[in-house]
Amino acid sequence: MEMNKLFTIGVLTSGGDSPGMNPAIRAVVRAAHTNNADVLGVVDGYEGLLNGEFRHLGVRDVGGILQRGGTILQTSRSPRFMEAKGQREAIRRMNEAGMDALIVIGGEGSLKGAYALHQQGVKVIGLPGSIDNDVWGTDISIGTDTAMNTIMDAVDKLRDTASSHRRAFLIETMGRNCGYLAAMTGIVCGAEIILIPEVHVTVEEVGKIIEDAYTRGKTHAIIINAEGSGHNTTELANALEAMDVGFTTRVTILGHIQRGGSPTAYDRLLACRMGVKAVEGLLEGKSGVMTGLKGQDIEYTPLEDVISNKRTANLEYYQMTRVLAR
Amino acid sequence: MEMNKLFTIGVLTSGGDSPGMNPAIRAVVRAAHTNNADVLGVVDGYEGLLNGEFRHLGVRDVGGILQRGGTILQTSRSPRFMEAKGQREAIRRMNEAGMDALIVIGGEGSLKGAYALHQQGVKVIGLPGSIDNDVWGTDISIGTDTAMNTIMDAVDKLRDTASSHRRAFLIETMGRNCGYLAAMTGIVCGAEIILIPEVHVTVEEVGKIIEDAYTRGKTHAIIINAEGSGHNTTELANALEAMDVGFTTRVTILGHIQRGGSPTAYDRLLACRMGVKAVEGLLEGKSGVMTGLKGQDIEYTPLEDVISNKRTANLEYYQMTRVLAR
Amino acid sequence: MEMNKLFTIGVLTSGGDSPGMNPAIRAVVRAAHTNNADVLGVVDGYEGLLNGEFRHLGVRDVGGILQRGGTILQTSRSPRFMEAKGQREAIRRMNEAGMDALIVIGGEGSLKGAYALHQQGVKVIGLPGSIDNDVWGTDISIGTDTAMNTIMDAVDKLRDTASSHRRAFLIETMGRNCGYLAAMTGIVCGAEIILIPEVHVTVEEVGKIIEDAYTRGKTHAIIINAEGSGHNTTELANALEAMDVGFTTRVTILGHIQRGGSPTAYDRLLACRMGVKAVEGLLEGKSGVMTGLKGQDIEYTPLEDVISNKRTANLEYYQMTRVLAR
Amino acid sequence: MEMNKLFTIGVLTSGGDSPGMNPAIRAVVRAAHTNNADVLGVVDGYEGLLNGEFRHLGVRDVGGILQRGGTILQTSRSPRFMEAKGQREAIRRMNEAGMDALIVIGGEGSLKGAYALHQQGVKVIGLPGSIDNDVWGTDISIGTDTAMNTIMDAVDKLRDTASSHRRAFLIETMGRNCGYLAAMTGIVCGAEIILIPEVHVTVEEVGKIIEDAYTRGKTHAIIINAEGSGHNTTELANALEAMDVGFTTRVTILGHIQRGGSPTAYDRLLACRMGVKAVEGLLEGKSGVMTGLKGQDIEYTPLEDVISNKRTANLEYYQMTRVLAR
Repeated sequence: MEMNKLFTIGVLTSGGDSPGMNPAIRAVVRAAHTNNADVLGVVDGYEGLLNGEFRHLGVRDVGGILQRGGTILQTSRSPRFMEAKGQREAIRRMNEAGMDALIVIGGEGSLKGAYALHQQGVKVIGLPGSIDNDVWGTDISIGTDTAMNTIMDAVDKLRDTASSHRRAFLIETMGRNCGYLAAMTGIVCGAEIILIPEVHVTVEEVGKIIEDAYTRGKTHAIIINAEGSGHNTTELANALEAMDVGFTTRVTILGHIQRGGSPTAYDRLLACRMGVKAVEGLLEGKSGVMTGLKGQDIEYTPLEDVISNKRTANLEYYQMTRVLAR
Repeated sequence: MEMNKLFTIGVLTSGGDSPGMNPAIRAVVRAAHTNNADVLGVVDGYEGLLNGEFRHLGVRDVGGILQRGGTILQTSRSPRFMEAKGQREAIRRMNEAGMDALIVIGGEGSLKGAYALHQQGVKVIGLPGSIDNDVWGTDISIGTDTAMNTIMDAVDKLRDTASSHRRAFLIETMGRNCGYLAAMTGIVCGAEIILIPEVHVTVEEVGKIIEDAYTRGKTHAIIINAEGSGHNTTELANALEAMDVGFTTRVTILGHIQRGGSPTAYDRLLACRMGVKAVEGLLEGKSGVMTGLKGQDIEYTPLEDVISNKRTANLEYYQMTRVLAR
Repeated sequence: MEMNKLFTIGVLTSGGDSPGMNPAIRAVVRAAHTNNADVLGVVDGYEGLLNGEFRHLGVRDVGGILQRGGTILQTSRSPRFMEAKGQREAIRRMNEAGMDALIVIGGEGSLKGAYALHQQGVKVIGLPGSIDNDVWGTDISIGTDTAMNTIMDAVDKLRDTASSHRRAFLIETMGRNCGYLAAMTGIVCGAEIILIPEVHVTVEEVGKIIEDAYTRGKTHAIIINAEGSGHNTTELANALEAMDVGFTTRVTILGHIQRGGSPTAYDRLLACRMGVKAVEGLLEGKSGVMTGLKGQDIEYTPLEDVISNKRTANLEYYQMTRVLAR
Repeated sequence: MEMNKLFTIGVLTSGGDSPGMNPAIRAVVRAAHTNNADVLGVVDGYEGLLNGEFRHLGVRDVGGILQRGGTILQTSRSPRFMEAKGQREAIRRMNEAGMDALIVIGGEGSLKGAYALHQQGVKVIGLPGSIDNDVWGTDISIGTDTAMNTIMDAVDKLRDTASSHRRAFLIETMGRNCGYLAAMTGIVCGAEIILIPEVHVTVEEVGKIIEDAYTRGKTHAIIINAEGSGHNTTELANALEAMDVGFTTRVTILGHIQRGGSPTAYDRLLACRMGVKAVEGLLEGKSGVMTGLKGQDIEYTPLEDVISNKRTANLEYYQMTRVLAR
């Protein structure tokens, strides 16, 4: 009988995965069941929504995932869903399955998809999941803290060997469009210089900074290069070698290691709070918003604002790196 | 010649040490030198201030400490400094050494000492360093994030073995007067129940909650007991065994492990920002304030307010644990 | 048709779990399938063997478990299996399921059970899984290396804070009957003294050693106390406080944390090699033996010898701790 | 008075640094002082020997270094020392300083230098320090276990995200001449295939293996490529992408991260045992030997044999990877 049917929330993860997606899924499931709602997990992001790949998620199904990296629901990029036809199909699948609302966990592109569904009348709330911290409308996204710690641990290891050898280390981090992650990381890694999309620095300037560090008597130098900085990591290293800056330069390319790892306490806490808040929001009738951290509170921001604004690196952090590397 | 003398800032760490004190010291030193000020490190907290145990800290002296736990300046508790006579002696030592201002990194008791000096005309700024997060006037203190991750890593290991065996684990954490650390940790550890000073729970209630978890089909249960909860950890474990709650109960007492470890990215970032802000404040003539995190910003709060207000655990977190443990 | 039936190997984990049991299970399954044999996982140790709780394990079923602590097959202690009646029942269950041979992963008690089955004609090979390293017939058991690293990481954290404060830390480790784990750990932790079942040391002697460390100018002291040393950890700490040995003493009880954690490289390698070797042994018709590490090789040792000899701590290590703590 | 002069041991670290060098230095110093000998630390390897850069090392000077990566004595490569003239100069410096014997911690090249000194009458004992495990005459070198765990932790993180995305990951590890490290690591990482100098595999064969993994239903594939395998990492990734093997391929280049990190328990234990053994050997009049692990014992091997034999990867491990990746 329709009247007895529980309110059913779908949950999906989309785009590049980020650590903390699993705790967010767990929070959604447990908060929903606490509030007498039901949950359908959507496998493989929007692609699974299109294909109707749903599975019921009870409270025990999310046991033991709090500490696991990645996402148990898997994720993908779905070009088909970018088109109106794909979205129509997805909505049909949701209706067939009796899904009353949807929670989307992902980065900027994924939240665009969420907004498109909202515009077509679907009840949807987004959670920002991104290691790059490039989502507007939240102080920080789920996954950024873990990624920052992962890079930091790697650089700490480099420093052990650096001070035994007098070396400069050039580390490539993620951050194709936004240098936020790199800017924060530079401070906590004691980097000499951070190369990010938002600030243009020439190879010669980099060389000068490293040479200065050498002459100031530092035993090593750390350079953080965000993917989207405009400098190819290998070419930059070769250029520095050719310039003779005092230190010899060695390269580390972290790659997808930055997406992995058990989520930190900070990311778990953020994911749990946002997951609970999203369920509460849907049950109160909210839609078309994203949960965001504002100071100490989790608040709702319209998805329309989220996707029409661009987040850039905090340049205060960028400057501070130069002070602290003295 | 006196006119050429640089503005000289003393820096000390006091009370229980917390991870992140070293990055804070490094930031103070590097920011001071960037601003043409000089730094004297005070060894052993207020006790060293009393005894004039100062050493000059140049930019190279704080190289390689960013990732180290503890504090290179050591710390102690100083009953002598609690008295007016001790404070007078300390001020004389500061004047002898040409120390123009002081930065104090520590918990509530240490900040009280800082306020006493301020009242006697010393220029002083405090930084909150506390794993318990019991300092009023800042969203979070330096060291809390690291401690939370340390406890979480320990509980993650317990969970590995717990689900192989069907066990309840009782973990004693720090938090003599304030359950903040325990309340946050409970969420990220997936605890069934958190015992904190702010909320009274009887042994019978604990037993009932664990028994419920057993009957709901959970493979294990985690109980977090803050030192100051009113429950002795060993006695509580014995009581649970006697009650037969389904699971057998095993005890872990983490002790000072919670104070150690390389500071997390979050704590390093917070310490760096606060260290820089404190130096800026002193150079602008500020005194009698503490740097605190308010949302995304580091702001000054009067020490008078800090020490006359009491921080307690966030009870929203306390409740959320119960929801998420379902 | 019976003639086409694959050779079927059962695999179970028993007793206290140890990190590396999952890689061992994975190796058994993958090596078996490579050799055209089939595998049945026995849930819950000998208790599951008695109850016929078997599940088929294909190569994909053990994907993703290489890095997980605990055991996916769960484990238990089974008093019923200790009796002839229980063993008869277990053999009947094995026959019913077409299980041709059994691999048992566990400590001394579990290997006794394996020998009992062997005596009754069951083809069985054992793998030593024990964090205490108390199994005779192998240089080291699966799980010991991980446990040693876990304790070491905890003590490293204590040392951070210890040198900020001048403290003695008393750490209780596992090792009820055998001090092997504690003796190895003492060296790698820089312990002042190790208390183990094999060597009797009085409280006064412990106090003298710690006092000596204090007068020699050490900034901290580490005491490792194995569960079975004869000293109650809390009482020993109180006694040291009462004696005034220079340092104040703080207690850490690690408990089951020592059983958890992702297995180290060493434990994974050992588990993989032993799992493969056990399958090869069964297919060659061997029975009643345990795989053991002898130097660089994995060799078979008769279970009869394994269970009739007692492993004790390496006293060379015990002595070396005293030298290295100077 | 010459008669009262203590036997004085020099200690140096040379070549590429490896985790565990610091515990080895600590063990040398503490064992020497226990035996009434004195220790001079040589800064910067053979270069420092040539230049007479010695500093006295007392028992307290090596406090707090047990857990630190790198080497407090720093290291370098010294072309000058490769020539007879340089060696003569070094011997003169040793005599000037009253250095009676030398302990050299390093890889193959460094041990060649030690042998050259031995041939010229200097009392010298070597310790194998190498993350590549390419030193003949010991089951394993100091640093290999830590490097293996570092790579493994990185790959574990990749696997989190890999199974969310269906990816192949290509990881470049160290190992210019010897694939030992890569071969061991492949097993513990669950690699599909390991590329090492000792075994030639074509790009087509790699592609076939990854495609097989895809069709067998694996959610990801790991490829370990040792530096000296003959395959350039980036080019190999591009070739795999061009071949369309089912998975898309992503690259990680770990670089010097593999040399860093706090030494594992295994490496600390090995370093401590070898350091003590080297001191004992010198005091017993031994020279021209290296301490090596043989099974459970530390034994001496003539340096002449060490440098005239070449260590290669264990091909048993290489094969086992293929079995376990099924």
